[in-house]
Amino acid sequence: MKVVALAGGVGGAKLADGIARSGLSTLTVIVNTGDDFKHFGLYISPDLDTVCYNLAGMENPESGWGRTEESWETLSEIEKLGGPAWFSLGNRDLATHLERTRRLNNGEELSQVTADFCRSWGIEATVLPMSDDLVPTVVKTNQGDLSFQDYFVKLKCEPEVDGFLYQGAEIAQPAPGVIEAIDQADLIVICPSNPWVSIAPILAIPDIRSTLMEKVVIAVSPIISGNAVKGPAAKMYLEMGIQPSAAVVADHYSDLLTGFILDKQDQALISDIELKYSDSIKVLPTNTWMKTREDRVKVAEDVINFGQTLIKEV
Amino acid sequence: MKVVALAGGVGGAKLADGIARSGLSTLTVIVNTGDDFKHFGLYISPDLDTVCYNLAGMENPESGWGRTEESWETLSEIEKLGGPAWFSLGNRDLATHLERTRRLNNGEELSQVTADFCRSWGIEATVLPMSDDLVPTVVKTNQGDLSFQDYFVKLKCEPEVDGFLYQGAEIAQPAPGVIEAIDQADLIVICPSNPWVSIAPILAIPDIRSTLMEKVVIAVSPIISGNAVKGPAAKMYLEMGIQPSAAVVADHYSDLLTGFILDKQDQALISDIELKYSDSIKVLPTNTWMKTREDRVKVAEDVINFGQTLIKEV
Repeated sequence: MKVVALAGGVGGAKLADGIARSGLSTLTVIVNTGDDFKHFGLYISPDLDTVCYNLAGMENPESGWGRTEESWETLSEIEKLGGPAWFSLGNRDLATHLERTRRLNNGEELSQVTADFCRSWGIEATVLPMSDDLVPTVVKTNQGDLSFQDYFVKLKCEPEVDGFLYQGAEIAQPAPGVIEAIDQADLIVICPSNPWVSIAPILAIPDIRSTLMEKVVIAVSPIISGNAVKGPAAKMYLEMGIQPSAAVVADHYSDLLTGFILDKQDQALISDIELKYSDSIKVLPTNTWMKTREDRVKVAEDVINFGQTLIKEV
Repeated sequence: MKVVALAGGVGGAKLADGIARSGLSTLTVIVNTGDDFKHFGLYISPDLDTVCYNLAGMENPESGWGRTEESWETLSEIEKLGGPAWFSLGNRDLATHLERTRRLNNGEELSQVTADFCRSWGIEATVLPMSDDLVPTVVKTNQGDLSFQDYFVKLKCEPEVDGFLYQGAEIAQPAPGVIEAIDQADLIVICPSNPWVSIAPILAIPDIRSTLMEKVVIAVSPIISGNAVKGPAAKMYLEMGIQPSAAVVADHYSDLLTGFILDKQDQALISDIELKYSDSIKVLPTNTWMKTREDRVKVAEDVINFGQTLIKEV
């Protein structure tokens, strides 16, 4: 079975890792690059790194992002020089940014560099940036338009959100392999990542969205009992006047969905969702909280089994 | 007493540190930036860093360059990614390159960044890059024209040297404070750095050279018994058809020199040098080998005492 997962940061990386470890499918992960930014002249791609570090089993198990067994001499010395320390740059993680930057500066594409890094790190899944073009997410807030990292890390998601711009998405080309992977996939999984800033940038690229329209697509809700498992998704919904729930996540992706997975805690929402979309979206409740590696595999198995049922029905 | 020292890397940094620690003078160090280069998109200024780390007492005591208590996770991870590891980038040292690059990319000048770094590191001496303009040293060799770091680090000084270019030196402006410091100095010390690639780039800037012509200048030979204390100076002289010795170092700087210091091992050369320059250059033999911090101060004291004698004579 061929699975394509769309993923952002920590939540998406966990499910992608679960799918890879389940051994039930050949996996391609298409990763959001809307968060990518330059810092100290380095090209940093936080979601790509989080996905790769998780797939390589070398992620920081506490934070979910960054590397395990990380050390911090560089950042601490930068701080002593009065430099900006708001973005965590671990010693090992820095190697990724430095070597990526060196190769991009030499004219290579992000997708090629990512493929080589995955090989070096022993990652079997195919990891593709959504695009080799820049598609920076701009967060429109009560403090003005902010670059994603300024909003997310520097200002700790404190400004109130009005909306989002996925700059350049309409003219961005999917990275090599993205459209082919979607075309050939038996199942598309929209991982439990932030709908606004992790998944929407991927879907904002016209060729990606139109290719997905033809496929069996399952989304896993990142919202459980009205709260995001991690990150500002619930806060963003609220600030834009939407009561956060698994149901509004289904709304977010409704034109694409064949199936939707929400947490058992949200079972009460199932009938509402199925009714709203006249049974065109099947909803499966399961335990979606991923604390351990075993949890990841368990959720992945539920997703793939659900997918197999849906594929037969289509 | 106001002293200006011209310095390159390790040898120059040691004597500059000795002068600073001697407490006998107010010190300004004018540092070669001909070795500066970009690597991984970072602006690296090896001689500035070596001088600063030594003046801050945080240099690696074995190598003389880089930081003490250094660790290497970043470089080791770069190597795992197949990236270039020929230039040693320690975790702590990286902070210097990253923060310098960030500030230069923001439009600040190298001299301003250096001044702020020195303040952060508790350095009392004034450290000035020779110029805020780029003056890259090109090494002309039997393997073609090479950038300095390619010659020096990547190819380990193996190519045979034909000559040097100090690109842009003739139009480079001395960094703010350089000409003023020389003007106001009682004594100029040309440190025991490589004459070809550490001192010549500084002297290739016309305004610096012409201002130095008016001053009491002492050079300390980096060549002892025909060998360089460190680095490729002797090899360079040989490849350009010159038998390396303290005497040829005196020739190198002869139009500027009031005094010249060579090692006691080279005492036999004194009369030749004094005769050749009709006593216009006074030569002092002393122990110039600097193994310990105490050695540095001892050489510095000899230099300054000799300088005081020469100043009285002028």
